[in-house]
Amino acid sequence: MINDHPEIADIVDAASRLSGHAIRTPLLECAAASELTGGRILVKPEMLQVTGSFKFRGAFNFISRLSEEERRRGIVAFSSGNHAQAVAAVSRHFAAAATIVMPRDAPAIKVEATRSFGAEIVLYDRKEESREDIARELMESSGATLVPPFDHALTIAGQGTVGLEIAEDLALAGATPDQVLVPCSGGGLIAGIATAIKARFPDCRIFAVEPEGYDDTGRSLAAGSRQSVDIAAESICDALLVPTPGELTFSINSDLLAGGIAVPDETTYRAMAFAFRHLKLVAEPGGAIALGAVLDSSVDCRDRTTVVVMSGGNVDASIMREALSASV
Amino acid sequence: MINDHPEIADIVDAASRLSGHAIRTPLLECAAASELTGGRILVKPEMLQVTGSFKFRGAFNFISRLSEEERRRGIVAFSSGNHAQAVAAVSRHFAAAATIVMPRDAPAIKVEATRSFGAEIVLYDRKEESREDIARELMESSGATLVPPFDHALTIAGQGTVGLEIAEDLALAGATPDQVLVPCSGGGLIAGIATAIKARFPDCRIFAVEPEGYDDTGRSLAAGSRQSVDIAAESICDALLVPTPGELTFSINSDLLAGGIAVPDETTYRAMAFAFRHLKLVAEPGGAIALGAVLDSSVDCRDRTTVVVMSGGNVDASIMREALSASV
Repeated sequence: MINDHPEIADIVDAASRLSGHAIRTPLLECAAASELTGGRILVKPEMLQVTGSFKFRGAFNFISRLSEEERRRGIVAFSSGNHAQAVAAVSRHFAAAATIVMPRDAPAIKVEATRSFGAEIVLYDRKEESREDIARELMESSGATLVPPFDHALTIAGQGTVGLEIAEDLALAGATPDQVLVPCSGGGLIAGIATAIKARFPDCRIFAVEPEGYDDTGRSLAAGSRQSVDIAAESICDALLVPTPGELTFSINSDLLAGGIAVPDETTYRAMAFAFRHLKLVAEPGGAIALGAVLDSSVDCRDRTTVVVMSGGNVDASIMREALSASV
Repeated sequence: MINDHPEIADIVDAASRLSGHAIRTPLLECAAASELTGGRILVKPEMLQVTGSFKFRGAFNFISRLSEEERRRGIVAFSSGNHAQAVAAVSRHFAAAATIVMPRDAPAIKVEATRSFGAEIVLYDRKEESREDIARELMESSGATLVPPFDHALTIAGQGTVGLEIAEDLALAGATPDQVLVPCSGGGLIAGIATAIKARFPDCRIFAVEPEGYDDTGRSLAAGSRQSVDIAAESICDALLVPTPGELTFSINSDLLAGGIAVPDETTYRAMAFAFRHLKLVAEPGGAIALGAVLDSSVDCRDRTTVVVMSGGNVDASIMREALSASV
């Protein structure tokens, strides 16, 4: 296992493993956002990925490299939902038994989808119990392998295939990106994307977009060291509530990112409604947040080419109804 | 202008004109529908197309061939909304003035979007006035060109690029389609798709999917001649309310189609909610109807490869809220 910073070759290798299993999501022009900002806005819609989020890529890259014997002993993961579904789906693909530790307040759609892939679910209290401890106990009793949600080179290389596809599609279109905005929680997605994009477009600026109150990566980048936020904060972005950047992801991100942007929940709701109306895409809150940073002008897009990564679409209908009522 | 049945070469030619202007929409595996039916279900998401529906393709193919002088005299179209937006957007692209005749009961999202592309809108009463008469008057007074919504070889060849992309993506994946289900109103989309698919996969069966009460193509196929339905009928599928098949489209469709399927509105609502939940796609009612035919087992999909065309996503938030409340 590599555990140093993954390189572009590791991402290219992950892409060849994923080929035929993951969906190669398109890069979509967003005419409405382009008009609004006076720039060119392109969207990478990872809600169209298998299991409804980019997480399938990292989980597949990791699990595909386990031995038969390791898979036989089972798979464990902890996740608020998107990683859970991805690990459950990939485990089923490889005929491995999966146990997923999920917070009791995870969206129903995510818990049900994870169960539908045949995984066993263990629920815990996000504010009182340690999911790491629960997962460790499971591993010790069965010999199962933990699939890291973000802080592992193979996970990061898998997520990096999002960036590789963006870079390939931009090159085909003869376009050069000025900036790429990526939703950020533990930092695996953006670390992988930044590695891929910077390899092909060294001058492109990559920004981490986080919910207000959970802007640990932004604060850490500003401070130059890993900072934690208070997990008592509330945010609609259930997928982005990790309070501290990963060790490996922060090491990569502090090398490659241009900074962090914090977005309030109202803006995220507005971005969900905008995606519904203009892109015909269902975005979960955490999936829409980078689009929010464009809509509320947190990032200057005028006369620039901006790529917005939309990371997932696993949202309960009740939350979407709220977003549509509030904003359309 | 060709006005005979378009051939695969005309569709390939349309595809090269559209390249760089239309979005090449992906072909998505729908794991949830595959599981439900015991077959393989693939979805072609044309709501991701520019202007939110496939109509951009036919309008672009037609308008791109007009002379400078013709474009200077202006463009006219009549449409319930998707063709309207498409013609407005393509006209703006070619710097031609567009006037669009739209029914007074068209969805607000469609009227607003058409206006946002700079077109002039003329509203009429769908049950009391003739949109053809209104358009004819406009043309006579200005010398403007009417962009036919479906019954023209160039329109059909443009829409046929949907089928060409499906055929190319299936060939790349090494898959052979057993059946393709296509939403049907005037019949231009399905005529183009059938021409492309049958050229590459002659044994594939193509079905027209229509709303109950507006199943004029299905009835016409059964009768062997063009039949009309009563336009007093109500349906949630605002994009599929043409009461009679086109002359050219029916001539093509009676050669190439396997039959028609009528779907009740409740099923269409369910398909919208299913697309929201499992595909993360926003489908308008007429855009979701072919998926409805799969979900309610109107078509046997077991052990078959079925392609479902989703034709558009221009739906008012209030209708989507209803679909989500009813079904999820």
